[in-house]
Amino acid sequence: MLSLVDLRDRIGAGRLTPQGAVSLAREAIANRDPEVGAIVRLDPAAPVPDEGPLAGIAVGLKDIIDTADLPTEMGSPLYAGWRPRADAPVVARLKRLGAVPLAKTTTTAFAFLDPTETRNPRNLAHTPGGSSAGSAAAVAAGMLPLALGTQTGGSVIRPAAFCGVVGVKPSFRLLPTVGVKCFSWALDTVGLFAARVADAAHALALLADRPAIDLPAGDPGLPRIGLLRQDFCAPPAPEALAALERAAAAAERAGAQVRDLDLPPIFAEAFARHPVIQDFEAAQALAWEYDHHRNALPPLLRAQLDGAQRVGPAEYDASRRIAHQARRSLKDVFGEEGVDVILTLSAPGPAPEGLASTGDARFNRLWTLMGVPCVTVPVETTAEGLPLGVQVIARFGDDGRALAAARLIERAIG
Amino acid sequence: MLSLVDLRDRIGAGRLTPQGAVSLAREAIANRDPEVGAIVRLDPAAPVPDEGPLAGIAVGLKDIIDTADLPTEMGSPLYAGWRPRADAPVVARLKRLGAVPLAKTTTTAFAFLDPTETRNPRNLAHTPGGSSAGSAAAVAAGMLPLALGTQTGGSVIRPAAFCGVVGVKPSFRLLPTVGVKCFSWALDTVGLFAARVADAAHALALLADRPAIDLPAGDPGLPRIGLLRQDFCAPPAPEALAALERAAAAAERAGAQVRDLDLPPIFAEAFARHPVIQDFEAAQALAWEYDHHRNALPPLLRAQLDGAQRVGPAEYDASRRIAHQARRSLKDVFGEEGVDVILTLSAPGPAPEGLASTGDARFNRLWTLMGVPCVTVPVETTAEGLPLGVQVIARFGDDGRALAAARLIERAIG
Repeated sequence: MLSLVDLRDRIGAGRLTPQGAVSLAREAIANRDPEVGAIVRLDPAAPVPDEGPLAGIAVGLKDIIDTADLPTEMGSPLYAGWRPRADAPVVARLKRLGAVPLAKTTTTAFAFLDPTETRNPRNLAHTPGGSSAGSAAAVAAGMLPLALGTQTGGSVIRPAAFCGVVGVKPSFRLLPTVGVKCFSWALDTVGLFAARVADAAHALALLADRPAIDLPAGDPGLPRIGLLRQDFCAPPAPEALAALERAAAAAERAGAQVRDLDLPPIFAEAFARHPVIQDFEAAQALAWEYDHHRNALPPLLRAQLDGAQRVGPAEYDASRRIAHQARRSLKDVFGEEGVDVILTLSAPGPAPEGLASTGDARFNRLWTLMGVPCVTVPVETTAEGLPLGVQVIARFGDDGRALAAARLIERAIG
Repeated sequence: MLSLVDLRDRIGAGRLTPQGAVSLAREAIANRDPEVGAIVRLDPAAPVPDEGPLAGIAVGLKDIIDTADLPTEMGSPLYAGWRPRADAPVVARLKRLGAVPLAKTTTTAFAFLDPTETRNPRNLAHTPGGSSAGSAAAVAAGMLPLALGTQTGGSVIRPAAFCGVVGVKPSFRLLPTVGVKCFSWALDTVGLFAARVADAAHALALLADRPAIDLPAGDPGLPRIGLLRQDFCAPPAPEALAALERAAAAAERAGAQVRDLDLPPIFAEAFARHPVIQDFEAAQALAWEYDHHRNALPPLLRAQLDGAQRVGPAEYDASRRIAHQARRSLKDVFGEEGVDVILTLSAPGPAPEGLASTGDARFNRLWTLMGVPCVTVPVETTAEGLPLGVQVIARFGDDGRALAAARLIERAIG
């Protein structure tokens, strides 16, 4: 994989030019993308700034993120060739930092569940996950050192785990979702993919203009970890659970305090309400597409929106109240329970075989609804060459701590 | 003015067809708009549905609200002729209800402070206010029975008050802001303009799919009103304060309980923090426009964005925390203090003379930041023919109560 920090170090030391770094990405795409299929469109003439803290960093953008210089097609023929007028603010920010928005990456249609053609670079017979399929796969295949995606249910953490890369879903609205096609305004979160935790932390700190996010491992102190199995979900594959427990044990050996964590019943309720909120908002967010082009929508999305028309305001309001209660309760978990970070599953198991499904987001939904920072870090590889990741979660706004704990686990495992 | 409820009653009784009702709007626009200048663009061939609870209702849309069938120009040459792919969800909803999105209405550039050419229909020598200038003026001039605008500081309540129409800024995100050009994602709120409170309540209840919003006056019970002068702002014109006090007295005569209300100091702090939040987010939301077309931005916006570049995350985070505290404190005002609605100023006075300024939003900013429903209702007219309005505010989610109290005041005055 292309490490962002490594590329920047080489550029800083004069051993690589920004142009050269971007050429590495272009070459890797030329070599690897024909079999992976992660790239929707490549900018043939993207300017490469010489200056800036991300100069030389080629970035992939999930194709629901507006770009003024490249089409933004939402994974749907309804937007074939569609050219937004403006860059989304996250894209404008990347350019200010000197990065090169080089490629648009594949997305499931409107970031829902209908699969893309993209393959998992670790095992081409498997899905890379979704909905940010291309961003995860492009980083995993070594095509790009950084890619942006979005998560409404589990669309950053799940594909990152399936592809064996680091994925970060930051605190809600740490990165603006302006200029990103909306599915659910209360849930949509811009996230990122990189090779290693240090790469992701460095990129997020710059994108959010918050240097404190980029803490070294072990700073601020060794974490107190709450190990959570999310028993309110259907159980994971045994190998995923075993990987989680081994990661916890490795963190403990590295000096972290680890203890089992149970959550009060309000979290199971909130988990169950996530789809209500998502459906109610998606029915509105995609109303034009549904009313005018229902038959052009792919089958899973069409069926979901059919059902979503029946979700009413009363059910939505009740769900929002439960989510609000759970968010307040979560502050107590981090406060009174003396937990710095939660360690849990990133996904129910490795990437499913075939391209018919993008996998299951059940271990991600609650955390998207809570708006808290989540980081997935790869910890093991199955006999089929498929990665398994674990997910580190911190309190709202504590993105740096989630990343620092993830870095500690990465090092403890490695 | 064209009353939405009246038009619907006539259509329901068979005395008017939907086509006929839309023709009334077209004729009024042809007569009045040459001197008012509220309309950016008229749909020459908008289909007029025969069915639906808003059939026959011609609607104006502030020109930062995306429409698939008409350009959306943001009040800026940067978006001249710009055609979005999709309707914003609020537009799709209007169509589902049978309404006719007939016209795009003038907006200050990107809904900031640089004035439009639009004139106040009550006195053409005065501003209609902004940023939703055209929507307020079009309803006031009797051109349209309903118009949508947005408020980030005071861009619905202020122009509605200046033009002598009813304006509603609903609870935050009651109406989705998806497909509406973003200035500040924590503040931007879609609102509406109509002739009378009953018109606005009926339209909002339908748009939000919440029938309980459309309560008759006096239901749910006569309101306990807290009369608030917002002493944390610079004082209003004496005539505005006198009109407020007379409106309170009229409400009391109509059976409402009225008492003076003071707010704890946290609200003055929150009021002062509104511009920090707005600036920090606007600098990001308009980053593409600023980075690529700074010289094409109008002077007030350009200067504001110049300054906004220096607002950092620490100041923003601190401001968000203060706003959060104030929102919690506001619950106590409505709870422990036994107040159902707050009655306060809509604007510092009548519409200023000339078109150089859109007026001052200082009596609106705090309430936009609080996310609570606000309704302005016209109560008096100055010797220059300029309207004065008062503002009714209820707790978050209690839009129906704000509207019911506004209706009581409207009736008590009328």
